[in-house]
Amino acid sequence: MSAVITGVEVHDVRFPTSAEGDGSDAVNRGDYSATYVELHTDAGVTGTGLTFTNGQGNEITCAAVRALAHHVVGRTPHEVEYREIVADPQLRWIGPEKGVIAMASGALINAVWDLRARIAGKPMWRYLAEMSAAELVESVDFRHITDAITPAEAFDLLEKGAVGYAERLADLDRDGFPAYTTSVGWLGYPDEKVRALTRDAVGQGWTAVKMKVGGPIEDDVRRAGIIRSELPEGALLMMDANQAWDVDRAISFMKRLGVFDPYWIEEPTHADDVLGHARIAAAVAPVRVATGEVAANRVIFKQLLQAKAIGVCQVDSCRVAGIPEVLAILLMAAKFGVPVCPHAGGVGLCEYVQHLAIFDYLRVGRSLDGRMIEYVDHLHEHFTDPVTVVNGRYRLPTKPGYSVEMMPGSVAGFRFPDGPAWR
Amino acid sequence: MSAVITGVEVHDVRFPTSAEGDGSDAVNRGDYSATYVELHTDAGVTGTGLTFTNGQGNEITCAAVRALAHHVVGRTPHEVEYREIVADPQLRWIGPEKGVIAMASGALINAVWDLRARIAGKPMWRYLAEMSAAELVESVDFRHITDAITPAEAFDLLEKGAVGYAERLADLDRDGFPAYTTSVGWLGYPDEKVRALTRDAVGQGWTAVKMKVGGPIEDDVRRAGIIRSELPEGALLMMDANQAWDVDRAISFMKRLGVFDPYWIEEPTHADDVLGHARIAAAVAPVRVATGEVAANRVIFKQLLQAKAIGVCQVDSCRVAGIPEVLAILLMAAKFGVPVCPHAGGVGLCEYVQHLAIFDYLRVGRSLDGRMIEYVDHLHEHFTDPVTVVNGRYRLPTKPGYSVEMMPGSVAGFRFPDGPAWR
Repeated sequence: MSAVITGVEVHDVRFPTSAEGDGSDAVNRGDYSATYVELHTDAGVTGTGLTFTNGQGNEITCAAVRALAHHVVGRTPHEVEYREIVADPQLRWIGPEKGVIAMASGALINAVWDLRARIAGKPMWRYLAEMSAAELVESVDFRHITDAITPAEAFDLLEKGAVGYAERLADLDRDGFPAYTTSVGWLGYPDEKVRALTRDAVGQGWTAVKMKVGGPIEDDVRRAGIIRSELPEGALLMMDANQAWDVDRAISFMKRLGVFDPYWIEEPTHADDVLGHARIAAAVAPVRVATGEVAANRVIFKQLLQAKAIGVCQVDSCRVAGIPEVLAILLMAAKFGVPVCPHAGGVGLCEYVQHLAIFDYLRVGRSLDGRMIEYVDHLHEHFTDPVTVVNGRYRLPTKPGYSVEMMPGSVAGFRFPDGPAWR
Repeated sequence: MSAVITGVEVHDVRFPTSAEGDGSDAVNRGDYSATYVELHTDAGVTGTGLTFTNGQGNEITCAAVRALAHHVVGRTPHEVEYREIVADPQLRWIGPEKGVIAMASGALINAVWDLRARIAGKPMWRYLAEMSAAELVESVDFRHITDAITPAEAFDLLEKGAVGYAERLADLDRDGFPAYTTSVGWLGYPDEKVRALTRDAVGQGWTAVKMKVGGPIEDDVRRAGIIRSELPEGALLMMDANQAWDVDRAISFMKRLGVFDPYWIEEPTHADDVLGHARIAAAVAPVRVATGEVAANRVIFKQLLQAKAIGVCQVDSCRVAGIPEVLAILLMAAKFGVPVCPHAGGVGLCEYVQHLAIFDYLRVGRSLDGRMIEYVDHLHEHFTDPVTVVNGRYRLPTKPGYSVEMMPGSVAGFRFPDGPAWR
C-alpha cells in the first residue's frame, strides 16, 4: 500500500490531573496533556503521534507541529526526510534540537513512523525489529555523534542483534517485559496514601517501585522509610528528585537516603548538567544515576554516556525528535554498556515506550539485566490500544502501529479550551 | 515613579533578509525576525524587549511570551519574580530552561528590566553598574550553579568591581568599546563581494573581522585566504562554523585553516556538546574555542567553563532568560577567567549586548583584554536608539533603557503576516 500524507491535524488535549496530586513532584505540577497529531492520507489509513506536556504551553507545542507540517504533507511516510525536519534552516534556531521544537518534531516524526508500521501491519516493536541492519542505520542521523558511534559500529551491533532473536522474542512472549511502578510515591500524596499504595502494589506483584524525593529532606527520609518497610526483601526502590538539587546537595542528601538502599537516583540535578551528573555518579556509587526524560537529543545522551554520568538511560519517546533520534540513543547506550529503562507515565508514554524497550531487547541491548519499563496507572483508558501490564510485566502489544491513537471521545471531550471537560 | 504593568503586547516582526544572503551560514538561512514585546503600564512608560528568531517559528516564541505574560501583569517591574517565570510548574516542562520557552522568557524579562532602567532614567549598562553588589546578587538565580560560584563569591567579585570604576568609565567614554565585524564573510556572498567588503571594513578602521566557515573545506580555505590577504598585519581573523562539524572533523579542518592564524573558532560543533568543545579546545590551542549564541542557560555555560571548553564566552542577550541569567553567566566567566565577547547581529542584538559588555567591563570582568562586541551592519535603522560604532568601537549609549525599542513604523510595516512588507 502506498499512502500520501494529505493533511496534518493537531489537537490540544488536556486532562485535569492537577487536582488529584497525581504527577506532583519537586518541580512539576500540572494537567497532563498531549499535543496530539493525526496524519491523514489518501489511502484512508491515519497515522498518530503525540508529545506529552504539563498543561499550559501545550498550545505552543501544537503551534510548532503546525510550523513543521509542510515537511510531511504531499509525501509518503518513506519519503519524509527526518534530517530536513530537525535541521530546518529557519526553525532549527528556536531549539536547536531541544525544547518545544524537538518535542513537536517528536510528535510529528512518530506519527510518520506510526503510519509506516500501520501500513506494514505490524506493531512498532516488530516493525523496527524486522528491519535490516542497513535500513536501521540509514534511518539514524549520525551527525555530531560520530565521535561516540560510527555507522559501521551501529551496523555491526544491529547485525549481532539478529542472532538469538527468535529465542528472545519467545522469552518476551511468554514472560512479558519487566516493569516498575511510579504510582506509589508522588509528593502530593499524604503518608498513609503512600503506605496503602505501596501495599497494593506489592499485592499486585510489583517488585520495583519508584518514589519522588526532592522536597524537605526529612519528609523524603520518612516517606522512604514507609515505602521500604512495606516492600518485601529484595524489592527495588528507586528515587526521583526531578532536578530539585544542586550537585553538592544531591551528593549529601543521597548519603542520607542511602540507608534505604535505593537502586537508582533519577534526575538528581539540572538535566543539562552532564558534568554534575558525572560527579554525583562517582560519589553515590554503587547507587546508579539515571536521567533522560528531559534530555533533549542524541548529543546530550552521547555526553552522559561518554562522561560515565549515567548508569541507567531513561530515553523518552517524544521529548527527543522521534524514532530516528531514539534509535541513535539506543545504539549509543548499547555501545557504552548502559541499560535503557525508558521514561514513561504522562499521557501515552507507557503505550509508546513499551515498543522501544522491546525492540532494544530484541535487536540492540539484547539483555534484560537491569531493564525495566516505567509504569504509571493513569490515563490509559483514553487509548485505543492501551498497555497490558500483568504481575508487574508488560505484555507484548499486537496491534499495528505505535499505540498512541486516542479514543475519539477523549480527544473531543478533553480538547482545550473548547472540550466539555474545560468549558 | 511607580508603574504597574497593565498589559503585554507581542508583535511578530520579520524582515525579508533571506533574499540577500545576509545572515547565511552553514546551518541557518532565514528572515531575521523579532518576537517584540511591549509592556504597557499605568504610568505611561512602556518597557520593550525582544528575542531574535530566524523567521519561521517566530509565531511560536510569540505564543510562548503570551503564555508567560500572567507572571508580570498587575505587578511593578520590581515585583516580578524571575524565578517564578523560569520555574513555572507547567511551562518549565517544554524547556526546561531552553529553546522557545527560554527565549520567550528572555524577551519578557528583558522588557521588565528595560522598564526598571527607564524608570530610573538610566541606560541599562549604567543601571546595572550602579546597583549595589547585594542587589545584583539578589537578582541572580544560583540554583544549579553553586558548585561553580556561590552568592558569597559573586558578592566579592562585584564589590571588587566598584574599585577603579570611575577610571574604567572614563576610558570607555573616551575610547568606546572594542568591536569586530561579521559583515564581510557570510557564506551566501561570492568571493569578490567578500574581498570588497573586507577592503571596505579595513578602510573603516576595523582591525578584527569574522568569516563564516563550515561549507566545503576548499571554499573555506580559499575565502580565508582572500580575507587574510586584505587584512593589515596584526588584524584579527575569527572563524565561525555554526555547528557544522563533528568533533573529529572540527579538529582536522582547523588544522588546515590554522595557516590563516585564526583568533578563535566559533561553534565548531553541536552547541550542546560540552565534552566535544573541550576536546576541540585542547586540540586546536592556542586558537581559542568560542561558543554561546545558542547555549540555553547558566548550566550549559557553567559546564563550558568547568571543562575548559571555551576560551571566549559568547553569551547572547535573549537566547537565555534575560538579564538575571546573563548576570549569572558574566559572574561565572569572570570567576573562571574567560573573556566575554557577546553574540550580536540578528535583530537588535547589537543594541542589547553593548550594555552587557560595558557593564561587564565596569563591574565584573574589569578588563578589555580579549573583549570585543560583535557588530553586523544591518537592521539598525529600525530602532529608536541604534548603536553608534566609530572606527571599530561602540560609543556608550546614553538614552534610558535597554535600546531595543523599535520604530513604530517598522513594527507596523514588517509585522507578519499582515504588514505591507509581507502582504
